[in-house]
Amino acid sequence: MAIDIGGTKIAGALVHPDGTMTATTRRPTPPSRDADTVMAAVTEVIADLSGSPLWPSAVRCGIGSAGPVDSSRGTVSPVNIGAWREFPVLDRITEELAARGAAVPAVLAGDGVAMTAAEHWLGAARGHANALCMVVSTGVGGGLILNNQLHPGPTGNAGHIGHITVAFDGDPCVCGSRGCVESIASGTAIAGWARARGWTPAEPGGDATAAGVAAAAEAGDAVALAAFDRAGRALAAAIAATATLVETDIAVIGGGVAASGETLFAPIRGHLADYATLSFVQGLKVVPASLGTHAGLIGAAAAATMLLPQAGTPTATA
Amino acid sequence: MAIDIGGTKIAGALVHPDGTMTATTRRPTPPSRDADTVMAAVTEVIADLSGSPLWPSAVRCGIGSAGPVDSSRGTVSPVNIGAWREFPVLDRITEELAARGAAVPAVLAGDGVAMTAAEHWLGAARGHANALCMVVSTGVGGGLILNNQLHPGPTGNAGHIGHITVAFDGDPCVCGSRGCVESIASGTAIAGWARARGWTPAEPGGDATAAGVAAAAEAGDAVALAAFDRAGRALAAAIAATATLVETDIAVIGGGVAASGETLFAPIRGHLADYATLSFVQGLKVVPASLGTHAGLIGAAAAATMLLPQAGTPTATA
Repeated sequence: MAIDIGGTKIAGALVHPDGTMTATTRRPTPPSRDADTVMAAVTEVIADLSGSPLWPSAVRCGIGSAGPVDSSRGTVSPVNIGAWREFPVLDRITEELAARGAAVPAVLAGDGVAMTAAEHWLGAARGHANALCMVVSTGVGGGLILNNQLHPGPTGNAGHIGHITVAFDGDPCVCGSRGCVESIASGTAIAGWARARGWTPAEPGGDATAAGVAAAAEAGDAVALAAFDRAGRALAAAIAATATLVETDIAVIGGGVAASGETLFAPIRGHLADYATLSFVQGLKVVPASLGTHAGLIGAAAAATMLLPQAGTPTATA
Repeated sequence: MAIDIGGTKIAGALVHPDGTMTATTRRPTPPSRDADTVMAAVTEVIADLSGSPLWPSAVRCGIGSAGPVDSSRGTVSPVNIGAWREFPVLDRITEELAARGAAVPAVLAGDGVAMTAAEHWLGAARGHANALCMVVSTGVGGGLILNNQLHPGPTGNAGHIGHITVAFDGDPCVCGSRGCVESIASGTAIAGWARARGWTPAEPGGDATAAGVAAAAEAGDAVALAAFDRAGRALAAAIAATATLVETDIAVIGGGVAASGETLFAPIRGHLADYATLSFVQGLKVVPASLGTHAGLIGAAAAATMLLPQAGTPTATA
């Protein structure tokens, strides 16, 4: 069973050992300020899943959630779900599953960790024993595969590459630190940097987000190109730092900003050789993520399989 | 058996399960440009060890070496031992051991990884499941403990924190990258930065190295204090980045510059809260290393025990 909790929607599915999905369902995330009202949407998703004839054969449950999470305590405090602060989502879901006859073990992971599990299982990090997977979108998140295992860290937040510092004398970040990758390379940062240097959409009322900056860069706009070049340098420095620290040999990048393709990937690759200089990191590769819209659900299931390998033998569903 | 290979000396010992050492021996590292001449000093160290009555009870051999190393291929190319470039030290030592009746498994680790194994076994990182250990000296090196295991990475170079970038727009580093921790926080960098800003030793011909800058900082010299503050900020940013990436909860720092004590540690700790902002890294601690001159030998033995746990049951020696 896979449950994916985000600020916009709460999704669920039964995920088979080959990665195909059954009984896919979703609810909008309630905008309520009441924790139980948000939980009620999760309960509806579980109710949908329990209607599947395959429900009794599920052996474990993976929960992916927007962060911050604390997987050791089973709690979440998603930035975009204000009703939940240290909400005990793991216990609440475990109780709900048991009440519906599925007393299976469950595990909670941050969405960056879940995306990493998905890309290692079925995506672009497949076959790599040591990999960094990232999402470059409104923010920047990520996760790590080390020694062929998911490395969530004690609280499930490892791989949080958006908040490592690549400019220790740099501008303040929303997290309170300085010069974080996210403050330079997120979609928000790219668009803000370009607008502060005079870039505006070609047409009044046009797209002033990073997607608009990407379109302008593709058309040759110098400020837009410089904004992506700067983001690409910061990402290259962070990807090289990660490889230098833990010997990852690939970085997989998904998310909305990565969807601009070579506009983002060309500067990253172009600058990577400037930062990945030591012999053992010179083979480092950067590639796009290969799983699309269902990466969250596949990742929740993959995280459960990697973190709860002992939970029964998958038969019809995992 | 432990063998520690550095640019100045080659040391050996039989290390007991409690960390005490027998048959400690050493040779100066031959300044020769001939690889076999350098190897002959290693052979002499092994000959000394084999004279111990405990030699037959050794179960594994750990080799720590100045880097770069490639533990997957068993080769070393130490910066300060020019005669050895991709020298197959693991095979050569294994043959030498077998020729002396000790056909035990051996493992090769970089000196930063070995120091980390030592501090986790018997030093300041003891009891920490996730730790960064560092040496701040002429250069900056390190290693990682993750999930209570040594994480050397596929080539034995993981934890190479001296060459992660904390200033992506910063000055070039000797490694070819920019703004590396080592280029800001090594003893060489601290002294160079202070001298470039007009600092000189109080007496003509006095100590112009980082130790001299530390003495001046203790006496209140503003440039010297600023040099250590800047190094402390770069180290704090790198330590926080590592914790954010892999959830280490302690950083242990040894080496010559760390020997200046609070002159280095106070700025690191003072700036740490500025960079370690996310909830899961706020408990991060920075402490001095606790093992002294024999950390290299203890670390080589500890690395062997962690990486070759299946190699027999330690009896009299490990």
